[in-house]
Amino acid sequence: MNALAPEPLVTLTSDFGTGDGYAGAMKGVIRSVAPHVRLEDITHEIPAGDIRAGSWALRTAVPFFPRGTVHVAVIDPGVGTERNAIVLQADSQYFIGPDNGVFSWIIREASDVRAWKLSDNSWHPEQVSHTFHGRDLFAHAAALMVQEGEVDLVCGEEILPCCCEWSTSFPVQEGANGEVLHIDRFGNVVTNFYLGEGEVALGFPLQLPLRKLIFENLNKTYGEVGEGEPLLLVGSHGFLEIAVREGSASKQFSIEVGDRVSVGV
Amino acid sequence: MNALAPEPLVTLTSDFGTGDGYAGAMKGVIRSVAPHVRLEDITHEIPAGDIRAGSWALRTAVPFFPRGTVHVAVIDPGVGTERNAIVLQADSQYFIGPDNGVFSWIIREASDVRAWKLSDNSWHPEQVSHTFHGRDLFAHAAALMVQEGEVDLVCGEEILPCCCEWSTSFPVQEGANGEVLHIDRFGNVVTNFYLGEGEVALGFPLQLPLRKLIFENLNKTYGEVGEGEPLLLVGSHGFLEIAVREGSASKQFSIEVGDRVSVGV
Amino acid sequence: MNALAPEPLVTLTSDFGTGDGYAGAMKGVIRSVAPHVRLEDITHEIPAGDIRAGSWALRTAVPFFPRGTVHVAVIDPGVGTERNAIVLQADSQYFIGPDNGVFSWIIREASDVRAWKLSDNSWHPEQVSHTFHGRDLFAHAAALMVQEGEVDLVCGEEILPCCCEWSTSFPVQEGANGEVLHIDRFGNVVTNFYLGEGEVALGFPLQLPLRKLIFENLNKTYGEVGEGEPLLLVGSHGFLEIAVREGSASKQFSIEVGDRVSVGV
Repeated sequence: MNALAPEPLVTLTSDFGTGDGYAGAMKGVIRSVAPHVRLEDITHEIPAGDIRAGSWALRTAVPFFPRGTVHVAVIDPGVGTERNAIVLQADSQYFIGPDNGVFSWIIREASDVRAWKLSDNSWHPEQVSHTFHGRDLFAHAAALMVQEGEVDLVCGEEILPCCCEWSTSFPVQEGANGEVLHIDRFGNVVTNFYLGEGEVALGFPLQLPLRKLIFENLNKTYGEVGEGEPLLLVGSHGFLEIAVREGSASKQFSIEVGDRVSVGV
Repeated sequence: MNALAPEPLVTLTSDFGTGDGYAGAMKGVIRSVAPHVRLEDITHEIPAGDIRAGSWALRTAVPFFPRGTVHVAVIDPGVGTERNAIVLQADSQYFIGPDNGVFSWIIREASDVRAWKLSDNSWHPEQVSHTFHGRDLFAHAAALMVQEGEVDLVCGEEILPCCCEWSTSFPVQEGANGEVLHIDRFGNVVTNFYLGEGEVALGFPLQLPLRKLIFENLNKTYGEVGEGEPLLLVGSHGFLEIAVREGSASKQFSIEVGDRVSVGV
Repeated sequence: MNALAPEPLVTLTSDFGTGDGYAGAMKGVIRSVAPHVRLEDITHEIPAGDIRAGSWALRTAVPFFPRGTVHVAVIDPGVGTERNAIVLQADSQYFIGPDNGVFSWIIREASDVRAWKLSDNSWHPEQVSHTFHGRDLFAHAAALMVQEGEVDLVCGEEILPCCCEWSTSFPVQEGANGEVLHIDRFGNVVTNFYLGEGEVALGFPLQLPLRKLIFENLNKTYGEVGEGEPLLLVGSHGFLEIAVREGSASKQFSIEVGDRVSVGV
């Protein structure tokens, strides 16, 4: 098992919003158990219960964190049901949260994955609520892990973690049918066609049939088109992305998550 | 007087939103005075001027922070009027902000409370604005307190702090009339009937007369009802809470803060 | 060149929102390069592409941070076009971001300003995306600067940074025509007439001609007018500000950024 970071680091991702004290409660738990830990918010603004959006947010942020970081993710509409609580090791980082698919992108793209049920609460001195495992289990377990420097401490039975179908990336090849996997704050439309950062040739046109949008070429930068014009580029995450220079592709072409995208004629 | 935390910790709660630089300005003041302090946002998204919502956010987050934490709360619609600025000690934690009721829940539930007017600004070298005490007084005082490790430094005359009526919890007993005290981001409806985490029996039905909602039983988890169905449970804060599984109780039943809730027939 | 802070401190300001993982990715980069740095969010909720609002947020927060702080600002609608990436020194603090005017207020008000193009990426081991310089260049450069304690490391050719016209403050004198430069979350209307914190006399009436709003006097605090009534005061930033006690001046009088304001008759 990989080591934790020498400078312990915990991140928080949730759908709690920031209008309530829920995210603050998790920070309090972590600070109480591990006063010296570095603690960073990734986001608390995932739409309520949107596991898919939460998984994508982790996908775009996690790869940039150092080895041994512990990521707590609480998009947990099934809290109190039979879904498992898990500890996940994906390559050199750790994850704690519900086993409901929120780690799908992480699992899909890691080369080395192991997962365990969060152990029964022998390490947890107080009562656990039925509706807020983020505070009572996940935050507590993460803090204990980094404070003691031991992952094993909170790991129970090893299991196969849940990995959802929508976390599948497609290569850009003729005849492939993909979909819109995310729309960001700028209205940029992320498809599930993956090119990586290195390549710049397209080969075949990319189409959103319903929107009558066809891209024959790949652009490198926004500057290559005029203001308000659409372009196709490799997003900062390595996926094909449809954007409008200084505009919103999503609004301008009424594109939604799940819309179909295809390659070729 | 209790000691401050050995690892000094300051939290921020405000209604500044995060679209402006106001929260950042408070962080700058704190970092200038106390460069080593741990600094955590609880929330800056309390609705503008909503003292009651701010007080509730503190109620849900503060109990999880370690002894000696200093909480700065700036929901301060009366800034520049005659309301006092206070330092509050409630059990083992400290609070700095306006004496306008924002600490009502904290005061109501603590067993040991003392409060002082923030001392005149002998400790404050520069001019204090008339409209932003969060930055010029509260953040500065909190930082100084943790940096010097001395609470007295910023305490003036001892006073009785303001505690609003709405921070009253009711036991669940027949004939009691309570109200909705908070609605969270998920549309969960928190009532002011308090059970604590331990109990699970209801005894008498809970009613929202205007919504024709009657609950005869208490649920433990969302999983006990179907999707879209209402349930009654003990929230993670110990109060009776009306929820809808994977939905919004507030929207589905048009429930608002202040709506009447009663126990019994 | 001034020294960096002994306790390295980096702040983040962006228009990424917090629903995506973009802000988190920047934090990951910084933590990977500089694990011990203090890291504070100023805001990630600047309206998308709104350079002017971003510049103002920096103006209201930056002056309160300690000497040697490094501020990363990513409101960057022209990412990938020919706009420069810069390192800016303004008095005793540092700034990294696009040279598109986002530092206008900082530049305008500093007495000592120098700027350099961000050096070619000899210090950057991996590929740089075309669309996310905030993550791949700015965050990385800031982290390297504080980690190594050397500003020069990321500075290329010295240049004259971009400073927009709208970052001009006007003295309050008869016949002056100014405008509304910002509206904050509370609906407070900030004009570009600057008085500083010290002065309290007005001398001439301030007018919003289209709104038929005329202020003859300057108020010191909200308490001097009744609830729902307008007042004119010197904001916490030193500029004349139109407010409504426990209300929104912007909504009540339909005032927008850019509206004309004049002094005198």
